[in-house]
Amino acid sequence: MEQAQQENRPGTRVKRGTLPDKIDRLEPKERRGLIVVITGNGKGKTTAALGMALRACGHGMRVCIIQFMKGDIYAGEWDGIKKLDCDIELHATGKGFCGIQGNPYPYAEHRDNADDAIELAREKIASGAFDLLILDEINNALKLKLVSLDQVLEILRAKPPLMHLVLTGRDAHTDVIELADTVSEVNEIKHAFRQGIDPQPGIDY
Amino acid sequence: MEQAQQENRPGTRVKRGTLPDKIDRLEPKERRGLIVVITGNGKGKTTAALGMALRACGHGMRVCIIQFMKGDIYAGEWDGIKKLDCDIELHATGKGFCGIQGNPYPYAEHRDNADDAIELAREKIASGAFDLLILDEINNALKLKLVSLDQVLEILRAKPPLMHLVLTGRDAHTDVIELADTVSEVNEIKHAFRQGIDPQPGIDY
Repeated sequence: MEQAQQENRPGTRVKRGTLPDKIDRLEPKERRGLIVVITGNGKGKTTAALGMALRACGHGMRVCIIQFMKGDIYAGEWDGIKKLDCDIELHATGKGFCGIQGNPYPYAEHRDNADDAIELAREKIASGAFDLLILDEINNALKLKLVSLDQVLEILRAKPPLMHLVLTGRDAHTDVIELADTVSEVNEIKHAFRQGIDPQPGIDY
Repeated sequence: MEQAQQENRPGTRVKRGTLPDKIDRLEPKERRGLIVVITGNGKGKTTAALGMALRACGHGMRVCIIQFMKGDIYAGEWDGIKKLDCDIELHATGKGFCGIQGNPYPYAEHRDNADDAIELAREKIASGAFDLLILDEINNALKLKLVSLDQVLEILRAKPPLMHLVLTGRDAHTDVIELADTVSEVNEIKHAFRQGIDPQPGIDY
């Protein structure tokens, strides 16, 4: 790359980094709080929700993340969130993936934890204190009957019009998909795990 | 929720928030730098890469993000990254989506920008200063022939063994998928845009 091009490259810095100086901004004609569902069997669902949290923080939004399944094994996002200077909170109320080999907790305990998570989601919605609420792995919790369809639909209906609500986890219920504005299905094409590679920090947890 | 359950809920706080006190940690038998591809036509690819950046920051990793297409319109992640207290840099070297209606920049300019981005990626890899390098929308750039397959494969081969490399964007090349460890395809099931809802801050940008 020639020096001339280097100098022409626009120069605002993000930490270190390069961003354009003059920039257009989108502004929606109408502000809407969206219901977003990220489902499927591939890697990237919780990760996409975390990306939305980071993006929302960039916009100065207030973010709450409730993790329905995580809580038994350390996840890198817990410390990532701590390093994010914005109005964000994260609750890991789960005890790991119910029914997965090696998970020692009884079904009743998983269900109690999921009930707590639902109650917490209700409180956070009622508080009006958040612009983005992420219910991480709630689709799995519903599939595993740790929460009921009625509980989830009640949350969807209680959502304030301007609050974004993101629901992640495989096997999203068709009624949830029906009520959502945006739904993505993340499908596994390949996974390092299947080549015998252990989960790696920064990528898998 | 009864008070007794409240008190039993483990109590470490993430900002505000609830996390378990005692926690198991995964530690891979072997550390590996993975090649991860996030492709498909659905919402959540760049977003998933940003989530990996957040997670990697939690692990104290050093992160570099190069955005091949973005740079003409403001993206919330630019300010999100600024609020992240870790060793992270972001370069938006693009001029928007080449060939998309309304994008005023000539093909040659897009290609020059993509060449800059490739050169930057090479420098960042050679520096050894990063644990995670994200090449955002590089798959599109390849599909649009803004970069060549040889340029991309050269980057994949130059990757240090312990550095994670994430490539996002629709239409990932089969040779790239072949070399990757983990590949997810994000498919659109629904998108608010198709119901006439404008892109919303915090979710879409």
